[in-house]
Order: sequence, then structure tokens, then C-alpha cells
Amino acid sequence: MADVPGTPSRIPHGPREHELREHDIREHSPREHGPRDALTDVPGLRVGHAQRIDSGHLTGTTVVLAPEGGAVAAVDVRGGGPGTRETDALDPRNLVQRVDAVVLTGGSAFGLDAASGVAAWLEDHGRGFQVGPEPTQVVPIVPAAALFDLGRGGDWRARPDAALGRTAVEAAHRTAPGAAVPQGNVGAGTGAVAGGLKGGVGTASVVLASGVTVSVLAVVNAAGSPVDPATGLLYGRLYQGETQPPAPEAHAAAVRRLAAARAESAARSAESARPPLNTTLAVVATDAALTRAQAQKLAGTAHDGLARAIRPVHLLSDGDTVFTLATGDRPVAPESATADPAFAVHAEAGAVNEILAAGADVLTRAVVKAVLAAESVAGPGGVFPSYSDLYEEPGSG
Amino acid sequence: MADVPGTPSRIPHGPREHELREHDIREHSPREHGPRDALTDVPGLRVGHAQRIDSGHLTGTTVVLAPEGGAVAAVDVRGGGPGTRETDALDPRNLVQRVDAVVLTGGSAFGLDAASGVAAWLEDHGRGFQVGPEPTQVVPIVPAAALFDLGRGGDWRARPDAALGRTAVEAAHRTAPGAAVPQGNVGAGTGAVAGGLKGGVGTASVVLASGVTVSVLAVVNAAGSPVDPATGLLYGRLYQGETQPPAPEAHAAAVRRLAAARAESAARSAESARPPLNTTLAVVATDAALTRAQAQKLAGTAHDGLARAIRPVHLLSDGDTVFTLATGDRPVAPESATADPAFAVHAEAGAVNEILAAGADVLTRAVVKAVLAAESVAGPGGVFPSYSDLYEEPGSG
Repeated sequence: MADVPGTPSRIPHGPREHELREHDIREHSPREHGPRDALTDVPGLRVGHAQRIDSGHLTGTTVVLAPEGGAVAAVDVRGGGPGTRETDALDPRNLVQRVDAVVLTGGSAFGLDAASGVAAWLEDHGRGFQVGPEPTQVVPIVPAAALFDLGRGGDWRARPDAALGRTAVEAAHRTAPGAAVPQGNVGAGTGAVAGGLKGGVGTASVVLASGVTVSVLAVVNAAGSPVDPATGLLYGRLYQGETQPPAPEAHAAAVRRLAAARAESAARSAESARPPLNTTLAVVATDAALTRAQAQKLAGTAHDGLARAIRPVHLLSDGDTVFTLATGDRPVAPESATADPAFAVHAEAGAVNEILAAGADVLTRAVVKAVLAAESVAGPGGVFPSYSDLYEEPGSG
Repeated sequence: MADVPGTPSRIPHGPREHELREHDIREHSPREHGPRDALTDVPGLRVGHAQRIDSGHLTGTTVVLAPEGGAVAAVDVRGGGPGTRETDALDPRNLVQRVDAVVLTGGSAFGLDAASGVAAWLEDHGRGFQVGPEPTQVVPIVPAAALFDLGRGGDWRARPDAALGRTAVEAAHRTAPGAAVPQGNVGAGTGAVAGGLKGGVGTASVVLASGVTVSVLAVVNAAGSPVDPATGLLYGRLYQGETQPPAPEAHAAAVRRLAAARAESAARSAESARPPLNTTLAVVATDAALTRAQAQKLAGTAHDGLARAIRPVHLLSDGDTVFTLATGDRPVAPESATADPAFAVHAEAGAVNEILAAGADVLTRAVVKAVLAAESVAGPGGVFPSYSDLYEEPGSG
């Protein structure tokens, strides 16, 4: 609806495009996916995966590389068993304003070594927080979070290291702008498992009516399940209007096959058969010029998208962590929306709300895509069937 | 499965009742509701509502009264527009160990006055944090959170006050142990609206296999919607295996009737027609002996249940807040589960995980019950139809 002129001292009637509003049963989302439906739909962001599946490995590292000059970053750690590095630097009260890369990695706390390789690469390229007069005098701040995949490849000590981190950031650097992002059993998702199913990497994006893009990369590795045990339906699909579950006999067959896979895993490897720890990781990105505090709010509300797609979630056995990257190429709300001073605060809050809601929704969809893209693995560390194989649904990896 | 004896130095194979475990598609919840399916299924807790619907009021206050000696309490504020009192005292690092009451109230920040009436009543009864040698020298710590319902009864300045708070705590005190809890348009839910629908109070409970009870009281008043706009299905029902949406023509009719109600509200009252602020509040209770830190973790993960039932949620226009009360009558995990020292940490974490997962699930169900129990209101402040009326479904209030 059009603006109501002549009432500058109060909020006019009728919703504007950017304002605080209720969401009700009349809402029909006009949002569209970005060109790749991927994290890289936020211009300037690149994604690199590196993984090892040889000699007892089933693990890897994913790097999200910001454009030159970095991006505003934030984090919200919601799981009860996190493994993180450089997250305190992201507190909006603290010194560093922008970061150059975020690392998601397998290998539990050991895997945080991958961030060292990324930091070394950034230093080589003169990128980081400037701490001296020489352009080379930088300290790259590389926030990182690890997921638990120890033993899933058969060798408990086979983990990502600094070299793998460097390989991942080099892979990111080589990609073209806006490149497609490989999903499934890649990077940090290589050894991921979710509710007994093979997990992995998923990515998705949306372009809001304002032109702002919100995109997500998720690595799904959860103690909880992305699948409703009563029906076999992926929880995340419920929020996309897909409420038709698999046929009961297909679900029953899937349950039997998963039980058999678990028994086989237990026979092959004691450690991976009953992993006590997991962790889902995500990066939520936007080209909107969020403040650091707004970026932190976005990281927090994005966890709602995780809650809708995985149940239960954020347990003591998960270290679920969401990072935010805001490149700042676009205003949060169009200038026209904030021109009226009496309305500016509501216009900005309304525009931020749209981004918050989108962050959660896109993360839900990225989890669904991760589970559908994952491929079954049967190795010395165990047998981890994919949803697509269990339910004989074509994967989308 | 039975325990595997003789392997005390490592986690044995096969799941025990209490341990860290994955949730997968084989999971079938053995949980049962408590006797009342209400907050009061945690022994010792009482609930009192007080409300005013006269002379421009459509608001109220709900008090949860702990047993003598108080309960361990915690809070997690996840919304972007909170109105709270005494929440900092609940930080596990801070002095006060137990509280006697929690107040949920309408009236936005003004409504926090209701807590003063509850504090006065507690002082009269010698209940509170002891600060001097005389039994009367107590300071009652009354954590409170407010929701936005200003103007919904027609008078912008008609809000809960200290007297209404006292009425609510007296009502709680008069109830019998384990009494049923009125739902719908009562107490803090009197003026609640969620996604344009009439909101209100809902309550639910579950008894875990360990014998621990987890119960919730929620007051649903959200900028987001509890209803999927694509189908008319209540989101929260999706997690109860109810995925059959209303008939498309019923949903279309509901959308038309809600639009008409909004138009009528706009004609009657400018303020209530477009409320820019909302807030869903909840108390999650358990008889388990949670530490204060565990109670805070439970308050946080319970928000996941809100995320599943309301979309979007935790926006800048919501002050969504969850309190926890743990009476401590039962151990978190049975003594038998923690007797093995090598296993105790996993047994306790597993038992806490069960409580965390239940807290989220029961909150989801309490939101559904609140929406179904709410009754349509048509007054000078606006027309707020109930889900039951819009979809011609019998209410359960």
C-alpha cells in the first residue's frame, strides 16, 4: 500500500513495505531464491571445501572467505558442547570490526588447527587486522567452530590440520565470483552425521523485496534428527508447505535399514557407532549493512531455523554455532523508507525483522538441502546411510 | 538394552536409559502427559490469574507461585524488545539462589507494576530473600516479564497495576495442590494476540521415563504467526504428527474473516489495529534438581519449542522471554545411572538432555493449547478472532 502523507508525527495506517508488522495467515511470501540458491549469492563471498577420505579419514574443513576488506561478523553459540576459536573477538563491544574468513571444520576441538592454516594464508596475502605500519603487519582474525566427527573414518586421530585449512582457503580463493557451492559430503560435512543419517553441507539463499540477499551455508551434524520419527518426513520441509510424508511402508523400511546400518557400524567401530557428540554449524550472510549488534541478533534468530529443522537441538551434546557475515553493500532499509524521521526507527526495525525472519527460514532450507545432498558412506568407521538412499528419494547434491 | 558389565573405563555399547544418545528415525516417544497436562503437574507450583475486561481494559497478570522455600530459577530473554524486572538477579553467578514467584503480565513495561503487588504479598507472608535477623526482614525477588497489549481494550492507559498483581498471587495461593490451570483469555493472556488471532494462556506437561516432570505455562502474544499461512495448519501440531491441514476452502474463508476483523479493528481503534509490539512469555518448570546453570540452559533450549510453534519469532518487535523454575524434588538422573564414576558425566548429561528436549516440546504443545483455548474478542479496542472460530474448530479452553 502507498504511504499516507500528512501524518508525520505518528505511524500512518496501512502497512508499508518496511515497518514493524505482524505476520498472519494472510501472509504469502514473495521471496525468491538467489541465482545459485547458495551462500555465494551474497556478492563477494567465496566458499572453499577441503576434505580427506583416505587412510582412516572422513573429515574436512570449509572456509568462507570474505571480500577484500573483510565483512562485519558475529556469532551465537547455542549448543552445550561447543568447540570454537576467536569467537570472543566477535562480541560487538570488542575491538576488531571486520573479519576476512570464517572456518567450519570437522575434527572436534583438534580440528580448530585448520584455522591456523587459513590465518597463515591470509597473512601471506596481507589480509587481517592491521597492527603495525607495514602492510604485512596484520593479525588475521579467523573465527572458527568445530563439529564432532572423530572416528567416523576409522582412525580416531585422523583430523583436519593447518594444511587442510590452507587447502580450503586456497580452493575458496580460486572460485569465480558467485560460483555454485558443492553440497553434501564435502568440506566440514565430509564426516557429518545427523540423527544416524549421513549429514553434510547445504546452502540456500533468498532475495527479499528490498533487494537484500540473505544466504546460508550449513553443516548438518546433529544429535537430534532432521526427520520426524513418526512419519519419516523432513521437519524442515514442513515449513515449505510439504506435509505429505513418505508412505508408511517406505518409512518402516527406512527404519529397518537404519537399524541394520547402526548394527553394522557397531561391529566395525566402537567409537563411531555411538557418537556422544555432534554439532551443527552455519554461516548466515547478507549484503545488508548490518551493525555488529544487528549481525549478532541475526546469528541468534537464525538458530530458530535450526530448531525447526532438527529436533531436539542445542543439547549438551551439540555445540551448535551460527556465524553471521554482513558485507554491507546495501542499506538495511531503502533510503525512502527511513526519510521520515518519525518513522525511521520503525522502518529500520521492520527491515531488520525481515532479514531476521529470512535468516531462520533460509537456514531451515539449507538443512533440508544438506540432508538431501548427503550420500551414504560405508567405511571402516561405520555405515552412515543417506536420507535419499533410505527413502529412495533422488539426492540433490 | 541392558547394561554391559565389566567395562567401567569406557562407555559400554548399547544405549542406557540415561546417557548421551542420538535421536533418530527409530525414536518413539514414550512420554505421557502429567495428570492435569498443566504447569501444576510439578508438585508445589500454583498458578493464579487476574484480569480486567471492564472500562477499556483487556489485560491481566499471571503469577506462578513456588512452594515455601522457593525454587531454583533462571531466565533466557531471546526477543528483541523485552520488558523485564529482576532478571539479572537470576544470572547463576549472582547472589540469590531461589525465588518465590514469577510474574507474567500484560501492560508492556507499565505492567511490571504488578510484580510490586506480588512482592508486597510475599513480604506480608514472610517470604523472600532473608536480609536480616528478623523473619520479616525479607526482600522478595519477583522476576517478571511483560507483554505488549496496550490499547487492545480500547483505553491505552488501562494496564495491570500492583493491586492486580496481588489479586493474582492471592488467587494462586487459594488454589489446591495440582489444581487445573485455566487457559485462553485469562491472566496475562487476556489481551494477547498472535499473528492477528486471539492469543492467550496455554499449559501442558510431560512425565519422562525417569519420573521427572517437565511442565510449561505459555502466554502467546506474537508478531509472528502460529499458523502456516500456506495451509492454515498450526505449526506446533506438525511436531505432534498432525500434518493434515484444514480444507483449502476453510482456510480461504478464515483468511477472509481475519482480513475483515482487521479492517473492523482499524475502524475502531488506531492503536490496536496495528500493534507494532508483541511478546510471548513462558515458564518452564520441573521437579528435577537442576543447578541454576542447568536451569538457564533449559530456559534457552525451551525457546526452540517457541521457534517451532511460531514463525517468525524472537524479532525486534517481540520480547520473548522464558523463565525456568526447578523445585528440586527429584534427582536429574536416578542414582543407579550415575553410580559408575566413569559413566556419571554422560549419564547426567543424557538426563539433562532429556529434560531440555522435553522443555522445548512441551512449550510447543502449550502454544498450540493456548491458541486453541483462546476465545474471540470484539470490543472497543478491536476485533480479535480466535483460531477456533476462524476455522470452526471446537476450542479446548
